[in-house]
Amino acid sequence: MAIVIIRQDGKIPEWKEALSAASPSIPIYSYLEEHPKEAIEMALVWKHPPGALRPYKNLKCISGSGAGVDFIFNDKEAPLHLPITRVVDQVLAKDMSEHVIGVILAYLKNLYTYKVDQANKVWRPLPYRRMGDYTIGILGMGALGVVLAKDLLHFGFPVQGWSNSEKDIETVKSFVGKNELSGFLSTTQVLVCLLPLTENTTGILNKALFQQLPKGAFVINVARGGHLVDEDLLEMLDNGHLSGAGLDVYHQEPLPVSHPFWAHPKIHMTPHYASVSDTRSVVPQILENYKRLQAGEPLLNLVSKERGY
Amino acid sequence: MAIVIIRQDGKIPEWKEALSAASPSIPIYSYLEEHPKEAIEMALVWKHPPGALRPYKNLKCISGSGAGVDFIFNDKEAPLHLPITRVVDQVLAKDMSEHVIGVILAYLKNLYTYKVDQANKVWRPLPYRRMGDYTIGILGMGALGVVLAKDLLHFGFPVQGWSNSEKDIETVKSFVGKNELSGFLSTTQVLVCLLPLTENTTGILNKALFQQLPKGAFVINVARGGHLVDEDLLEMLDNGHLSGAGLDVYHQEPLPVSHPFWAHPKIHMTPHYASVSDTRSVVPQILENYKRLQAGEPLLNLVSKERGY
Repeated sequence: MAIVIIRQDGKIPEWKEALSAASPSIPIYSYLEEHPKEAIEMALVWKHPPGALRPYKNLKCISGSGAGVDFIFNDKEAPLHLPITRVVDQVLAKDMSEHVIGVILAYLKNLYTYKVDQANKVWRPLPYRRMGDYTIGILGMGALGVVLAKDLLHFGFPVQGWSNSEKDIETVKSFVGKNELSGFLSTTQVLVCLLPLTENTTGILNKALFQQLPKGAFVINVARGGHLVDEDLLEMLDNGHLSGAGLDVYHQEPLPVSHPFWAHPKIHMTPHYASVSDTRSVVPQILENYKRLQAGEPLLNLVSKERGY
Repeated sequence: MAIVIIRQDGKIPEWKEALSAASPSIPIYSYLEEHPKEAIEMALVWKHPPGALRPYKNLKCISGSGAGVDFIFNDKEAPLHLPITRVVDQVLAKDMSEHVIGVILAYLKNLYTYKVDQANKVWRPLPYRRMGDYTIGILGMGALGVVLAKDLLHFGFPVQGWSNSEKDIETVKSFVGKNELSGFLSTTQVLVCLLPLTENTTGILNKALFQQLPKGAFVINVARGGHLVDEDLLEMLDNGHLSGAGLDVYHQEPLPVSHPFWAHPKIHMTPHYASVSDTRSVVPQILENYKRLQAGEPLLNLVSKERGY
């Protein structure tokens, strides 16, 4: 009866300490240390090396330690018949919301442009842009999208959302399914992608989609690099259809220095930083699921294998 | 019975048109065109050339067309015995709030730093900073400060304010007068200056004040250039006591290209853009005061000569 942590970002000690502090009686191991493989019943994973779950013959649950679990489905050697859980966390959602609103305001208030003007010693006041005049369209109204929508509304932005199933949030116009995507896009001035990455959403941010946005739209991708067709974004920025993009996620991270995004004047990059799972906040739901696993009870935040999220 | 518009920013036609559209019967003149000087009873001014009010012997009111009226008091030839009014406008207050929150989030979310990292092709995630952990201190809780405080609270920031008189806003800690300035500063992580510029507040953003802020504080000046002692800010940024500054106003505007602010890596400049009087929104209160002037009724938004705002 033990948990193994598998991740490659140097944060195993932080997670181990947080889990042990909250529940000292459960043995917690790093996958890199000597440990009894047959005792492992839960694997807490984040972008683990494919195949790393193979040694655990008694595994009962794959616990993703972030909101997205696309990396688990991408590991073709993972025991995908087991229950898979993900993190649904208000801190994570609030972090995402803060980041996205920061990027939207930096764009609307021309802070990116003024930074360039400052470097060139150019004094050039631009026309004022008000929040109330820009409709924010959220692609993906899951746990993160809903919190963002509420914060934006609160703040005075017109907001609309697109998702697979109808969402009922007061004053947020809800668009549902493929048939309503065009209507959603044609009235969205700032598009925020918060979709889960699945077979259906891979490459969804492509030329055909961008062309349905009004001229001058701004695109924010804080979901996964795999949602975006990089060359389509570059084309639509360079032909002036899109006015800019704020990107936090990329096909390869860190983004290789040879990639054209780095030097593009209309692309504003952040290094996959929009929201980062906070151990203090997430540990309780991991331990609750461990307890439920022992007791044979239904797990929290179970991922649908069919939907892929 | 007429109004003259005196300003040097090229916006006379815009104001003239807006006033005439709202009240076609009142004669409105630009100070640059031929006009009957003796008919002028109200001067609508914004950074007018000193002495420009001299020709109007029958003037009854000086109407400042923005929130700040320091430029009127600085015109030693102006008939300062007349009633002086300023603009108190919810659109102006909301614009200011949007801008300041944009600058705060750009700082907290490291968007300025990531822009530099991008230019250098450096992938370097920084520690996450949450709104709830940063106390915003608003210096000057007038019409603009109060709207900003409410928006920040709404959004999840701890907020405190300093002013001459006690303000009662739920959950905003209010500091009053000189005696409480130290306590206010020592607990403020992001300082926003929204004071009127008067004899008492000229140069208030100086070394002695900055030293009372905690190490690493960020300073935003969106009031007037005259509040800031430029060399003191540079010293406190260079010795590391302050982590950065967002400036929208300067002693001279446009800021001369020789000024060290342009090239300073910790200074984030905008070209006096935080909030700009919107003619549509402001014209009704100007015309209401014109009517009151004719009727001998008390004017709206009267400036106190003693306080200077």
